[in-house]
Amino acid sequence: MRFTTRTSADGVTERSFTLGEVPGVLWTPDAAEPRALILIGHGGGQHKQAPSVVARAVRLAAEYGFAAAAIDAPAHGGRPKSAEHDRIITELRARMAGAGDPLPLLAELHTLLAGQTVPEWRSVLDALGELGPVGYWGMSLGCALGIPLVAAEPRIRAAVLGLSGTSLASAEAASAVTVPVRFLVQWDDERVPREDALALFDALASGEKTLHANPGKHGDVPAFENDDAFRFFARHLG
Amino acid sequence: MRFTTRTSADGVTERSFTLGEVPGVLWTPDAAEPRALILIGHGGGQHKQAPSVVARAVRLAAEYGFAAAAIDAPAHGGRPKSAEHDRIITELRARMAGAGDPLPLLAELHTLLAGQTVPEWRSVLDALGELGPVGYWGMSLGCALGIPLVAAEPRIRAAVLGLSGTSLASAEAASAVTVPVRFLVQWDDERVPREDALALFDALASGEKTLHANPGKHGDVPAFENDDAFRFFARHLG
Repeated sequence: MRFTTRTSADGVTERSFTLGEVPGVLWTPDAAEPRALILIGHGGGQHKQAPSVVARAVRLAAEYGFAAAAIDAPAHGGRPKSAEHDRIITELRARMAGAGDPLPLLAELHTLLAGQTVPEWRSVLDALGELGPVGYWGMSLGCALGIPLVAAEPRIRAAVLGLSGTSLASAEAASAVTVPVRFLVQWDDERVPREDALALFDALASGEKTLHANPGKHGDVPAFENDDAFRFFARHLG
Repeated sequence: MRFTTRTSADGVTERSFTLGEVPGVLWTPDAAEPRALILIGHGGGQHKQAPSVVARAVRLAAEYGFAAAAIDAPAHGGRPKSAEHDRIITELRARMAGAGDPLPLLAELHTLLAGQTVPEWRSVLDALGELGPVGYWGMSLGCALGIPLVAAEPRIRAAVLGLSGTSLASAEAASAVTVPVRFLVQWDDERVPREDALALFDALASGEKTLHANPGKHGDVPAFENDDAFRFFARHLG
């Protein structure tokens, strides 16, 4: 792992790194050793430094004393797209413009990306070393890629997931998730059928899992759910 | 309103009262004027001093500085049952023992009780006078009776409801509820069909409403939902 840039502001240090081909960012609180590490999986078309990712990471570090890390998913941010990605994304744009149902193709894309990003996240965890117990936060694409990661990685002890469903994420992987989960659903999600979202929540094998549903579309998660998620991590990663 | 007994312990004063035929209890914090008043609607077969009601009221007062009030629903606690109640409850016991579907009869009972308890709660609010903004907390029977109360009473500015559905509570009354609502669903509720619970949440007209679903049966609401509900009231009732 090679750290490249380092900046500090408002009690939080942000360091960029690369691990092999994977670019990432680590945020740590300046005041004390981090009490835990939260991995942030960005949404589709976003990247490790999308404004919502950075805002979440900075609050986790500044207000809660957590470290946070984000990496670019394959074919996102500055990472190259394979011919396979290009083919799927071209077809996806056509379908979103009205040429058919985009869901099966999005699911195919998520499966392709998950096969790559799960081992990448695990290598990043190895390289970061001990930063306390680990949590995972990911909505939408970050949920679809996070579920197989949380299922595979025993260091992750709690997860905030959501904005996805069985048409987009693996119910089989969900049935191997056993850690406490907070699962967000947007009640009027224009991208994720409500039934699919409820079925994905159903599929999780976690003894403690809570679904939070709010009115509104895919992008309308209310701000108070952030505070709620932070308290959820604080409770489970103490 | 006539106050009968008064006891204080651990920073909370508990006073019993009667208003006409209606017996009730008021809990207030000793440390300062209450910041708000939470009305607690008890569950079916319970009463104003059921252990879960008292525990909730004492925590609201001691930890959050709220006043809390509970009254016996008609035919509950020490209150007399009418011939109509007796008939429904006898038939309900038979159906619960296997002689048919209890849900339509429970809905009939809830409608009967709501017609009485809504004006009773409103008179209690008048008599208690100014104790700050008002919230309502009620699960199960407390939800079915609370929905028409919250719909009718403009002094109530936030509500925590749940463990009920459209087969047991009025969807029509729910469509007149516009204040922020937290709505609890037990994912494996043996008494409330899941679809009915989701439909009741759907029916609420509130711009801010959040559904929290947890695994487990009717009586298995996890303890952390209490803290969550208290913070919800604190956020909305200042």
